[in-house]
Amino acid sequence: MEVNELRITFQKMIETFVSILEQNGFSPSKAALCADLFAKSSLDGVPSHGLNRFPEFIRLVKEGYVNPLAEPVREFALPVFERWNGNLGPGMLDAHFAMEKAIAMAKLSGIGCVGLYNTNHWMRAGNYGWQAVEAGCVGICFTNTLPNMPAWGGSEPKLGNNPLVLAVPTGNLGVVLDMAMSQYSYGKMATYLRRGEDLPFDAGFDADGQLTKSPGEILAGNLALPFGMWKGSGLSLMLNMVSSLISGGKATHEIGREKEEHAISQFFLCLDPGKLGLDMGLFRERADEILEDLANSKVFEEKEVHFPGEQSLRNRKENFANGIPVEKEIWESVLRMAKETS
Amino acid sequence: MEVNELRITFQKMIETFVSILEQNGFSPSKAALCADLFAKSSLDGVPSHGLNRFPEFIRLVKEGYVNPLAEPVREFALPVFERWNGNLGPGMLDAHFAMEKAIAMAKLSGIGCVGLYNTNHWMRAGNYGWQAVEAGCVGICFTNTLPNMPAWGGSEPKLGNNPLVLAVPTGNLGVVLDMAMSQYSYGKMATYLRRGEDLPFDAGFDADGQLTKSPGEILAGNLALPFGMWKGSGLSLMLNMVSSLISGGKATHEIGREKEEHAISQFFLCLDPGKLGLDMGLFRERADEILEDLANSKVFEEKEVHFPGEQSLRNRKENFANGIPVEKEIWESVLRMAKETS
Repeated sequence: MEVNELRITFQKMIETFVSILEQNGFSPSKAALCADLFAKSSLDGVPSHGLNRFPEFIRLVKEGYVNPLAEPVREFALPVFERWNGNLGPGMLDAHFAMEKAIAMAKLSGIGCVGLYNTNHWMRAGNYGWQAVEAGCVGICFTNTLPNMPAWGGSEPKLGNNPLVLAVPTGNLGVVLDMAMSQYSYGKMATYLRRGEDLPFDAGFDADGQLTKSPGEILAGNLALPFGMWKGSGLSLMLNMVSSLISGGKATHEIGREKEEHAISQFFLCLDPGKLGLDMGLFRERADEILEDLANSKVFEEKEVHFPGEQSLRNRKENFANGIPVEKEIWESVLRMAKETS
Repeated sequence: MEVNELRITFQKMIETFVSILEQNGFSPSKAALCADLFAKSSLDGVPSHGLNRFPEFIRLVKEGYVNPLAEPVREFALPVFERWNGNLGPGMLDAHFAMEKAIAMAKLSGIGCVGLYNTNHWMRAGNYGWQAVEAGCVGICFTNTLPNMPAWGGSEPKLGNNPLVLAVPTGNLGVVLDMAMSQYSYGKMATYLRRGEDLPFDAGFDADGQLTKSPGEILAGNLALPFGMWKGSGLSLMLNMVSSLISGGKATHEIGREKEEHAISQFFLCLDPGKLGLDMGLFRERADEILEDLANSKVFEEKEVHFPGEQSLRNRKENFANGIPVEKEIWESVLRMAKETS
């Protein structure tokens, strides 16, 4: 642990978030779920969308971009599909609600799908994948964002980094892939910039359109590299099209016209293997066999092979037992928010 | 046109394929659809899975890996989900059949999904995306393959390149993303090797695990680079898990135990926007607005921005009017097959 690090229990982090959220207009039940989702991100080792993002989230609440009182409203329903207006409520609550709806439909009909529009940033995408596997379901979801990445060949941000989640139940809970369409996040590039270091691999473009590992040049133009170059560029476009067109919500270029990123569009899909005629025990066994084959891969010197979410499961266990590592300065600033508002 | 190139009409190519297929045990209706799908790949500018792959496909038929008489059998059905055993029939016929089923379910219930197992290589993945948009549907499908790509960190092929398709209807038919999980196909690497050239970007690993553009080193170990490095590696794993577990079919490591790649697993999903409460005219207009915004992107010097499938639509139009460019040698070898068997 570094000197400017503390370890805070999961419970203490939740309580701290709850008190600040309740002072900012959240009902006790909404504050509890919101706090849980923020704290789980930090618990799993993703503080960028947990504790470290919490002050920014409260700012958006205070400035009215996120309405803690908003309730999602259903605008269309079939047995396997529903369209919901998020009414600019807290994005993580809307997203959690949408995945619950998709799970419930899947439990009844085998498949459930939700188009959610007019919602806000869902913070850590992976949370909704873990939610699906905790319900024993295969989950697929994605969101669009404001334009923050050039299309392949382009010299200005036109695409969103549109995080994508695929989640599959296994014997030990699940495998959860949670990835944005940029090779690296701007947050990670900013961290490298502060350290005065280059990224390990090409991370974006300089002003002349050359691939570069230098975070400063990339950040200057918001020219993050789509992962896999033309391939991530194409995938980002498709995720934006499906999420905005199926939900009837804003597309990336429309979101980009707003002062702050809000009123975004999301897509949730759930499949319940048990309802699809599969034996769930055998499903989990076969999933584990796939992971075992992967784990047995020969590796290059000093390299390891991991499955998506493996590190999250490890962090979760360790941080639940020993406390969640937090940057002292950020934690203390959040504690001050709790005092200011109480 | 290069000197060793000919142009063959779409109709002539279909007739030639039909006659060979019928001589190899295909019924007239199956021969017609199979020929159409092969010829469409070449028509759209993807000869690697069209004409150029046809002789290899016939070899697999002759050797019994692909059974032209096989009929898929339904093993489980819900209103929105069906599981089919492909019975080792021609992969493109099974896949076309599965997407038709998904479309039909979507037209009735909003969503349709098919898990297909025990099938064979579907040739050009994009064909099934175009099939969905021709029916006015959003289509998502993917397949697993034999192990042909290392996981991130690994030094042996453990993952498949598992082509993925996302297709969305637009004013001008549709946008169809068709991409494998490797940055480049082995076919493309072999082409560069023959020319004695390096790939434009890192394409795989050498024997020491270093990224390289050199096709020979990569081909020696089957060490193609997952697109976007750890991200494409993770996505490949998930597509294998979903396709094999939901269909109840073989996973990549099980396919790898066979002498030839066969008995693979696929997943098809279809959404009918009209049935999901959306106005199809408005849907297409909004899709076109997204493409227009993309087309208006500023670009780096000598670069262009394209949407997935844009080049296919252009090739289709031009090659339908002027004939499909074919390599003379390959075309003549196929003509000889027609003579041998007639």
